[in-house]
Amino acid sequence: MAQRIAIDQTGAWRALTLHHASLAGTTLAELFAADPERGTRLAAGAAGIHLDYSKQLLDDTALALLQELALAAELPDQIDALFAGAAVNRSEQRPALHPALRAAEPPGELRAQREQMLQLAGALRAGALRGAHGDAITDLVHLGIGGSDLGPRLVVSAFPERQSAAVRVHFVATLDSGALTAALARCRPQTTVFALASKSFSTPETLTNAELARQWLDAGGIAAAGTDRHWIAITSQPERAHAWGVATDRILSFPEGVGGRFSLWSAIGLPIAVALGPDLFAELLAGARAMDEHFRAAPPAANLPVLHGLLRIWQINFQNLRSHAVLPYAHGLRHLPDYLQQLVMESLGKSVDQDGQPLGYATGTVLWGSEETNGQHSFHQLLLQGTPVVPADFIVAASPHCAPEAHRLLYANCLAQSQVLMLGRTAAEIEAELLANGVAAPQAGLLAAHRAVPGNRPSSTLVLDALAPACLGALLAL
Amino acid sequence: MAQRIAIDQTGAWRALTLHHASLAGTTLAELFAADPERGTRLAAGAAGIHLDYSKQLLDDTALALLQELALAAELPDQIDALFAGAAVNRSEQRPALHPALRAAEPPGELRAQREQMLQLAGALRAGALRGAHGDAITDLVHLGIGGSDLGPRLVVSAFPERQSAAVRVHFVATLDSGALTAALARCRPQTTVFALASKSFSTPETLTNAELARQWLDAGGIAAAGTDRHWIAITSQPERAHAWGVATDRILSFPEGVGGRFSLWSAIGLPIAVALGPDLFAELLAGARAMDEHFRAAPPAANLPVLHGLLRIWQINFQNLRSHAVLPYAHGLRHLPDYLQQLVMESLGKSVDQDGQPLGYATGTVLWGSEETNGQHSFHQLLLQGTPVVPADFIVAASPHCAPEAHRLLYANCLAQSQVLMLGRTAAEIEAELLANGVAAPQAGLLAAHRAVPGNRPSSTLVLDALAPACLGALLAL
Repeated sequence: MAQRIAIDQTGAWRALTLHHASLAGTTLAELFAADPERGTRLAAGAAGIHLDYSKQLLDDTALALLQELALAAELPDQIDALFAGAAVNRSEQRPALHPALRAAEPPGELRAQREQMLQLAGALRAGALRGAHGDAITDLVHLGIGGSDLGPRLVVSAFPERQSAAVRVHFVATLDSGALTAALARCRPQTTVFALASKSFSTPETLTNAELARQWLDAGGIAAAGTDRHWIAITSQPERAHAWGVATDRILSFPEGVGGRFSLWSAIGLPIAVALGPDLFAELLAGARAMDEHFRAAPPAANLPVLHGLLRIWQINFQNLRSHAVLPYAHGLRHLPDYLQQLVMESLGKSVDQDGQPLGYATGTVLWGSEETNGQHSFHQLLLQGTPVVPADFIVAASPHCAPEAHRLLYANCLAQSQVLMLGRTAAEIEAELLANGVAAPQAGLLAAHRAVPGNRPSSTLVLDALAPACLGALLAL
Repeated sequence: MAQRIAIDQTGAWRALTLHHASLAGTTLAELFAADPERGTRLAAGAAGIHLDYSKQLLDDTALALLQELALAAELPDQIDALFAGAAVNRSEQRPALHPALRAAEPPGELRAQREQMLQLAGALRAGALRGAHGDAITDLVHLGIGGSDLGPRLVVSAFPERQSAAVRVHFVATLDSGALTAALARCRPQTTVFALASKSFSTPETLTNAELARQWLDAGGIAAAGTDRHWIAITSQPERAHAWGVATDRILSFPEGVGGRFSLWSAIGLPIAVALGPDLFAELLAGARAMDEHFRAAPPAANLPVLHGLLRIWQINFQNLRSHAVLPYAHGLRHLPDYLQQLVMESLGKSVDQDGQPLGYATGTVLWGSEETNGQHSFHQLLLQGTPVVPADFIVAASPHCAPEAHRLLYANCLAQSQVLMLGRTAAEIEAELLANGVAAPQAGLLAAHRAVPGNRPSSTLVLDALAPACLGALLAL
């Protein structure tokens, strides 16, 4: 690949800077008033996900310039290079393998690695995996941290009603052994298997917890000779796992070139296949693949990942916003902000470019958030009224995944929050309400000043067709 | 109280602005080199908590000016007014009652309300509370959201080994009924009681979940006439709770003047007293009270809450930092960032002052974080290398609360992270290491550029004597 262009030295970047300045003072309410079609026009959909970005503070000129910027950065070539398996990770001189992992027929060793993982998951689900004393395994304790933990934890917890009754899955990440102790309180040594998930097989947290697990097995009467029936390893370093004591037929591999944040699509997805089954794992992959295909083929103006990325550049580099909230209106997606933190904050947001040269512009953003409506009773007041402006991504599922009335209220709350962020509420409006409700005049004025919401704060809304494996796969790929 | 001074119009504020500019280019490493005692001097302790703020980017002049600013804002008078029960909440014209709630002998109705809560908790723990069919209650499902959820949830989960075996406590907050469904899957209608925790007794989430709970009891064979044995209400609106169907002797009250973020110290603390017992609840209160007494009596330069607040003003208003990470190195404190989000982002960070006048300076900050060492495998890369600067508060306990080796590593990781944030690692240093490990020259240089850490990023460290109820009480009061 040729030397990358510094994007802040392009004409599009300079034009965006000027155009952003010219938009100062323009409000979302004005943009909507000037264009009644805005709400349907600034939207795009693919793979069961509808993105409404009409409440972002930008106009058609800004969108066109952002697309010019993408062309100046050779984005189409970069997308082709990603899918062609070129060495797009230049500092480590290797390809990024996640699209290949999500292929229906993954190339090379990836296919056998997926098969081996699904077979082991199937054996566990069928009760064919036995402990040292011959008992069927009933509990899988997944020891991993970061990318080896967050993806599987998110997916498994998204579908509680579809979790296996035969094998319960537990996730333990931190070095604080209290987490392991809590998980083991619900397990018996004879019927428990540990999955040691570590790309390098040298992660201190995972090996420290594994050592404590070994002591627990030992104290539980599993003789040293029998412990190999209680270990699985998931790693890119099978020799290290074997040297540690994991039997060769219990070692699942994935390539070094799989980034931690993408490893849920590899053998690290074992707990997903165990808890939810191979069919659901296939649906998850299919959803991700549908988004990959859309990303590869759709024109920039209708391309969800491209639009999403360009909006983030607009926020970070032109609107100068440094944090960003992700607000899923679904209990099943409660671990999504944690997953996304690792996805975007561990490997993006560096201060140097791909060639190691210092960058002259901001790259990263602090991503945070929580499941809703919990956040509405916590940090939304700052989102609505605080002095820092925080752009928000609302996420909601269109079809009910819980009691119908609860889902109706969830959905309504999600839409209402994005509306009030945009439109605000004036002190006069609130004061009139308070006076009508019998609050005395000076008090009503003071309360109204405290309750006023300025509005004009940007957000996007992602509507999933359903809280279903394929939609979740597409969302994670996006 | 007299008209408040606008703090950005004071001489101290202007002097701080100038002084901050004069510190540009001064590094933490230089500040430490110039003052070998800095690490012990820029520290303070009280109530089992040691605060080390030596890694904040400020010097003695800045500290002195911040204390001047506190005096200009009449902070000592404000503290006196808070503890005297004056109407420090001016928009609602009432006192802030949390110090009174934490008193050994709370005044007025607060005492009877605490007694009634502890009696009900004792009855539950003793098996004296019976369901409609005469069974002893084994499960308490606490329905509340925001302040009615986060405090009790944090405290109960901090001490798993001290949780009652007789009565299990479950927390359900969100409108998504999936959370309630998951909790009820572990309960039986005959032996379950629901605590409806809502200050206004009109919170939609809590009432929607209560309605679903009522249907579950009904489907479980608890006749309508008997359901009053399965409800507890915790509210400032007892009439509304009674009208909803809660028996008078099962309604616990707390005053309207208790802010949601402080309600764990009131009857909302019922799940704490049930799960952990009245003695532990008393220890928690005693720890908070010790911090209150310190806050009231200690001189500003040695006063933990005052120092903590002044550092936040330094970061927000002079360093222009808009988010802030809280990083507890303890699994038991995993819900602390959620609790603190509500504490600082729901009611602080408004755009108007106490008198309803618009403010000319920033007030709020986005608080986020996670339990460690999980964050180290996720967002620390952005903290270390990203373009946004995010000040961090590290929190760790001095005495072991888990396996000794795990605790030693936790503690070492906590200190190491604050060191590397401060000192960084140069590309040259990393390149030399890579070359020594046999990485080829061009690749080593490129990797080193990607792995370099600029350093000079501010943090504080809070060391708790122990992960114990009194220390947690003091931390939450701080």
